[in-house]
Amino acid sequence: MTETPLQATAFSDDAAGRVVISVDAMGSDRGPAAVVAGCSHFARKHSNAFFLIHGPKAELEKLALSKKALKGRYEICDATGVVSMDDKPAQVLRLGKQTSMWSALESVRNKDATVCVSCGNTGALMLLSVVRLRKIPGVYRPAIAVLWPSRNPQGFNVMLDAGADIRADERDLLQYALMGASYARNGLNLDRPRVGLLNVGTEEFKGRAEMHAAHELISENAKAARFEFVGFVEGSDIPGDRCDVIVTDGFTGNIALKTGEGTASLIRDFLREAFNHTLLSRFAALLAYTSLKRLGKRIDPRQVNGGVFLGLNGTVVKSHGSADATGVAAALDLAYQLAQSGFNEKLAARISAATMLAAEASDETDADGELT
Amino acid sequence: MTETPLQATAFSDDAAGRVVISVDAMGSDRGPAAVVAGCSHFARKHSNAFFLIHGPKAELEKLALSKKALKGRYEICDATGVVSMDDKPAQVLRLGKQTSMWSALESVRNKDATVCVSCGNTGALMLLSVVRLRKIPGVYRPAIAVLWPSRNPQGFNVMLDAGADIRADERDLLQYALMGASYARNGLNLDRPRVGLLNVGTEEFKGRAEMHAAHELISENAKAARFEFVGFVEGSDIPGDRCDVIVTDGFTGNIALKTGEGTASLIRDFLREAFNHTLLSRFAALLAYTSLKRLGKRIDPRQVNGGVFLGLNGTVVKSHGSADATGVAAALDLAYQLAQSGFNEKLAARISAATMLAAEASDETDADGELT
Repeated sequence: MTETPLQATAFSDDAAGRVVISVDAMGSDRGPAAVVAGCSHFARKHSNAFFLIHGPKAELEKLALSKKALKGRYEICDATGVVSMDDKPAQVLRLGKQTSMWSALESVRNKDATVCVSCGNTGALMLLSVVRLRKIPGVYRPAIAVLWPSRNPQGFNVMLDAGADIRADERDLLQYALMGASYARNGLNLDRPRVGLLNVGTEEFKGRAEMHAAHELISENAKAARFEFVGFVEGSDIPGDRCDVIVTDGFTGNIALKTGEGTASLIRDFLREAFNHTLLSRFAALLAYTSLKRLGKRIDPRQVNGGVFLGLNGTVVKSHGSADATGVAAALDLAYQLAQSGFNEKLAARISAATMLAAEASDETDADGELT
Repeated sequence: MTETPLQATAFSDDAAGRVVISVDAMGSDRGPAAVVAGCSHFARKHSNAFFLIHGPKAELEKLALSKKALKGRYEICDATGVVSMDDKPAQVLRLGKQTSMWSALESVRNKDATVCVSCGNTGALMLLSVVRLRKIPGVYRPAIAVLWPSRNPQGFNVMLDAGADIRADERDLLQYALMGASYARNGLNLDRPRVGLLNVGTEEFKGRAEMHAAHELISENAKAARFEFVGFVEGSDIPGDRCDVIVTDGFTGNIALKTGEGTASLIRDFLREAFNHTLLSRFAALLAYTSLKRLGKRIDPRQVNGGVFLGLNGTVVKSHGSADATGVAAALDLAYQLAQSGFNEKLAARISAATMLAAEASDETDADGELT
């Protein structure tokens, strides 16, 4: 039941020692050219990566042939339909069998790849993933986990749920804690992640009953699941260093994520304006070019591109719809890392252990009365 | 029932034409020296402002005497007790009669001042304010409104509730819309503020029943209350330009606020590090000094210091606990502006009009059947 961090293991995807990634080339804001360029960027860094690229064959073949780094490293899986950003998820589920998104998930379902990456419609991707890949036995609600730039040494924190489901009760929040800790162990190389439960700061507000129930439940399970529970944390701790994993419901998580992104983007624009203000400040900006670039990189959403769907039989990485080649490459990087570490098998084992523990506890309760 | 924006009116507080502000000098992280220094900073800009400063007389007298700008502009109201940041609100309510916070609110209760400013314990200030000042007739739940740096021409958006209450149903959210619009009209000089209801972005999640009910209710009332309702907005719109007022429950609002503050503070630190990295970058920082300062000012939380408690008989401005003189002066500025515009009377009139409308509507329903 122990999970070793990424570096200690070297899982590979298939008999040939390749890590196979299924890529949905369609449905993003920038079209398939950005996706194929992202594959090429990424391929240069990882020689054992292999791509199954889903979309209209002729178009993709032309794009892929122009990339040297992709030579002999991909297979095009022909799919003529495209899920657009406005398509209703239920509609895609009913009518979307011909789409590249559906096809990309089928490769994971058929075990031809362990991970799938898509820049498309989040709602449709989530619904298709749940229906086609199915939940890991024991998981109540899948969640979307995102990486958040932080003050911690590893540079990022994990926050979940970022919007897979708008409600979560205490059992769900416990599972998010288990899944988030597992993700932090395999994606961020943290042996014993610190988990915090998102709440409002002041005393009175801490009274919300479901938060207290979740607090108790997570606290009870922390030791067996090998994470440290730091208790309630506040919004300011999401980018902070009090914990590595922030657990919350999908409504709150989605709003926090977009608020953080909006704030960062506002400050980036203010920064640009400030340096464009006078001739001297423009000259200073020139001198400070590398410094500003360094800063830009640290707060660039493209560098941490990828929400991961947790709790399914297979890993799905959702890249930003507007991701360019750099963004797509970052999402592929994350997918590759998770595939290589055998993350999903470990997560399933973790959930199954927790479910057994809970069953044992309830057996004991049944046998010995309510309060044991 | 029309509300004129601030500049058109010139309310004054008392017969002498002074705007009297009640100031709680105690209970902040930096102690009374920062508060008195803030009064002095502020007094230099507004010659008709007068302060009732609450706290231990001897100590405050000494501090105030050292400030030239305060000469003849203040009165010390002796109060020996101090509400600390750790005090439980209920305890303060039972035992806190001798505290400076209690005393500062009494001045508003007795109509010696229209506004009260405190840097102390938020929970205690809220509870004391509700119990001592009482809610405006027709208000269900008071709310805390905060100003948020934004892309809008006025430079700020209003968000409420930032944490007065963790729950809000559709009636509460409608009242937040009314109160927030009134605040934007009087505090930001917007004739017809645009109001948005905070929700998660993707289609599926928009199904939460209470959000739909609130959407409908706010939509119905927008015209009569002279604001524009833009519908659902996302976290990224809080610092954006799609609307001027963002309405949400206090749990979500508090987390959004702290997430935004945490993100801004992280980027500030990254910026500092980036410019300290090499000798050249330090030189560039020197050249870019004014640009960086200009940026710092735009994202400095001290410049927008002050959550306003809305829905009570009297205006209470809660300043950051860690506010320095600049921060306290900003909170006083906000309090002064609201006092001068006769904001609270207008807010009460607005709520009373909405309550009457609702009563009329329900009378009609009674008379003509359910669907009129």
